[in-house]
Parts: sequence; C-alpha cells; structure tokens
Amino acid sequence: VHALRSALPDERIVYLGDTARVPYGTRSPGTVVRYARSCAHVLLDHGVKALVVACNTVSAVALDVLRAELDLPVIGVIDPGASEAVRAADAQAAASGGPPPRVGILGTVGTVHSRAYDRAVARLSTRLEVVSEAAPLLVPLVEEGWLEGQVPELAVERYVGPLIARGARVLVLGCTHYPLLRPIIQSVAERLAGERVDVVDSALATASAISGLMDRRVIERSAPLSDSADAPAERLKLLVTDQPVGFQRRADLFLGEHTPEVQQIDLPTPA
Amino acid sequence: VHALRSALPDERIVYLGDTARVPYGTRSPGTVVRYARSCAHVLLDHGVKALVVACNTVSAVALDVLRAELDLPVIGVIDPGASEAVRAADAQAAASGGPPPRVGILGTVGTVHSRAYDRAVARLSTRLEVVSEAAPLLVPLVEEGWLEGQVPELAVERYVGPLIARGARVLVLGCTHYPLLRPIIQSVAERLAGERVDVVDSALATASAISGLMDRRVIERSAPLSDSADAPAERLKLLVTDQPVGFQRRADLFLGEHTPEVQQIDLPTPA
Repeated sequence: VHALRSALPDERIVYLGDTARVPYGTRSPGTVVRYARSCAHVLLDHGVKALVVACNTVSAVALDVLRAELDLPVIGVIDPGASEAVRAADAQAAASGGPPPRVGILGTVGTVHSRAYDRAVARLSTRLEVVSEAAPLLVPLVEEGWLEGQVPELAVERYVGPLIARGARVLVLGCTHYPLLRPIIQSVAERLAGERVDVVDSALATASAISGLMDRRVIERSAPLSDSADAPAERLKLLVTDQPVGFQRRADLFLGEHTPEVQQIDLPTPA
Repeated sequence: VHALRSALPDERIVYLGDTARVPYGTRSPGTVVRYARSCAHVLLDHGVKALVVACNTVSAVALDVLRAELDLPVIGVIDPGASEAVRAADAQAAASGGPPPRVGILGTVGTVHSRAYDRAVARLSTRLEVVSEAAPLLVPLVEEGWLEGQVPELAVERYVGPLIARGARVLVLGCTHYPLLRPIIQSVAERLAGERVDVVDSALATASAISGLMDRRVIERSAPLSDSADAPAERLKLLVTDQPVGFQRRADLFLGEHTPEVQQIDLPTPA
C-alpha cells in the first residue's frame, strides 16, 4: 500500500487484511485458495478495478485460480520480484565479467513449496539458478516487533546461511513481512558472503508494474483526486477481519502517516 | 489427548485441531469466541458427552460462553493448571517455612490479557500473587520444531527472565505448545533463579479433573472397551481443518504411537 500510494497518488485503495486467519504462509494450498477467494470477493464488492495480491503466499498458490475466476486484472508480487532479481543478478554478472550469481529466495513454507519464484525466474532467464529457503520464524519475529538483537540475527543467519553457502548473491524478500528485517538480512548476508549481496523487495517493483499496466491501458488510470473533495478515508479504506487492536498503530508505522480508521468486517463462508 | 488416554483408556476421544486458523493466541476475544463456538458444534455433532477445551487461549476467553450455550460438561485447562500451581507454591512455602513464592504464568497474548489464571489462583488462595508474561514467539518455535539451541534459549530467557526477577518460583506452562520446550524453560528458570523452580503442565491436572468428574458421576464413565471389538480409529478420531500434511507425524510424536488416519473437515460459518 505504501509503494502504491507513492507511485499512484491519485488512485483510491481498498486494503483487506485477513487478520483473523493470518498467517497464510503455513497453510496448505487448498486452504490458501479458499481464503484468497473469499477475500477477493469482498474487494470486488467494493467495486475495485484491479486486484493486487500483496502477499507472496497467495501470489504463489492462488494467482492462477483468481485470474481464471475473476473478470478483472489480478496482479501478484512474485513476477515483479523475480524481474527485479534477474536484473540484479545480470548486473552483478556484467560488473564482475563472470557467470551470474544464484538467486536466493527467502519465503514462507507455502511460497517455497510452490516453486513459484523458480518458475518466474525461469521464464525470464535460462541461465539463472534459484535456491530457496523456507523461513517460518521470520513472520512471528516481525509480528512480535523483535527486529534487532541476537534472536532475529541468529534466526536470519540460520535461514540466510544455506542460501549464501549455495552461491546466492541476490536475495529476494519473498514475504511482505520481511522488509522490516531487511537491515539484519542484508548485513548477515554480506557478513557470511564476504562480498556484496543485493536484497530485493518486491513492493516497489509491483507498484511500478501496476503503473505500467495503466500506461498500456490494461487498467484505467483515475483522474487526479482533488484535495478538497476527497477525505483521506475515501483515498484509503482499511478493512480487517479481526478486531483492529494494534493494527492501526502498525498501519501508521508502515504507511508513515496517520491512517483512516480501520474497519472490522466478516468474511463470507469460503466456497 | 495423551494425558486423557493414559488416565482414561476406556474413553473414546474425538479430537478437533483447527489447523486452518491456528494460532488462536494472537486473536481478539471476539474472534476466539466465534472460532471456539464453531469447533464446539462440530464436536457436538459427533455425539460427545463432555467437551475438553484443550487450549489455554480458548479456556481463558471462551469457556463461560461455551458453558452457557452448551448443554454438556465443558472442561478447560486453566482451573486444573491453577490448582496444580497453588499446590506447588504451598509446598515450597511449607518446605522453606517462609512466605509462598509468586506464581508465574507464561502464556499467549490472549491468555495473559484475559487474566484468567489470576482469577483462577485468586479463587483458590488469598495469599498467592500471580505475575504473567506473554510469550508469543514460543508457539512458532515449537511449530518450527526449534526446541533446542541458542535461539529457543534466548527467547525463553527473554520471557522467563522477568517472571523470575519478580519472584516467581512456580511457572505455569500456559499454552499447550510449551511442554515441548519444558526442558529449556526449567533449566533457564533455575539458572536465573539460582534455586529450584516448579514447572506446571496442566495436561495431567486436566485429565485428573475429568476423572474426578466421572467419579462424581457428572460425566458418565464408559464401559471398558474390548480390544477386539474396537478398531483404533474408534478409540481416537483425529479431525483437522487444514490439509493434514505433517500433522500425522506430529500426532504420532505427541501421542507416542501410530495414530489413526487424520481426517480433514470444513467448519461451519461462525454465528
């Protein structure tokens, strides 16, 4: 949402956080698809013109189903993240004159098992190899606000170590929680590698992909919002499925501004 | 389930694990009540004669609602755990001749915020003081199988440290996941305290409370199961709401035997 608002300040955004059923990263594909479907229908009922699946697990597991079932553009975060990683690996190869480094994916169990990043990178480059590591403890660490010190460092080292050892010098933050641990991930990775490691966050790449779809008129671009006519609540609607205790504070932190009031909703029964 | 089967080998058990929506410990009370209600109705449809709420968060938050709404005995894990803690604290006071130690509760955010252990201990003893610490990272550590080494030790120290510093010498494992970290919790607690610390696991106390209800005929005791007539699947039914990948292996580990096949079910929409 933060990246989208920076890239596309005139667009109205409806955000749905399924806080009553997170985390999705440990759930089976069937359950992720059911949950994704019920979330998508809530957003469709709000009259959205495009759906951004701002979750790696859902992008990895349910994007094809959503695209097949829904009659609007559905944008995931995997392809933009993979493109960015391929660019970074190619740039490292060009700079060193050697072969490209491997691309390392740090993700949830669901994302890693789906091999969605492997397929996305393979579609973009035939010479890049992908290595992956499921990092189930990083989401709870971020949720707990445990972002510095020995525990997150040791946890990050346990997950990043095998990727660096297998030659990854580009790391994709394959979960929307991980950017908050980016400083530790970058420093642990570079300490273990003894050289530069590029860390890729797919948020900016995704926002820029959406802007590109607007340039190509796949998604209609909104007319500029007038500051006087639109209350902040019209520009950004925040919906969650559990009581929004603590959510508002975290939303303010993530978005760097005081966000409109968070609304709690019920999800329909998954089909 | 393991404690119940040891204490009451003739009873048939239906177990429901809401694996598609765990963990409950971070959810708001309203959501926990809704989820608990839908789980209870599935078990009632299986014709159970008593309902054991084998989860501290649900016991802390939803027990009164379930008892008010359901027409059968509903047993939680908080009261049995609190009784055991009071016994241990009184025994320490008797042995030392001094005042009783404080009782420390290690629990989820939901359990600690509910103050259910404080109330349960206060009902049993007017002289015992309770101190609590929410330990949100311990469930993910157990789920991840990260049961020894520096990370769980540092995490346990972070949560147990404040309890020991405030005088707790009896620690209640206020979440059904924590017993798997019991060796670390006990050793960290005794290292920090420099003396003996009693660690209370409510599973055995709960099973023994249920056996007591059967002695007092609040719950009917079943006739002995004949070994030949009842297949293992009749003695223990395991239901889960997400795909049972990995669950069977963990069930075997927890129960110390090869368990019957795990069945995936859908939950009705919460009322």
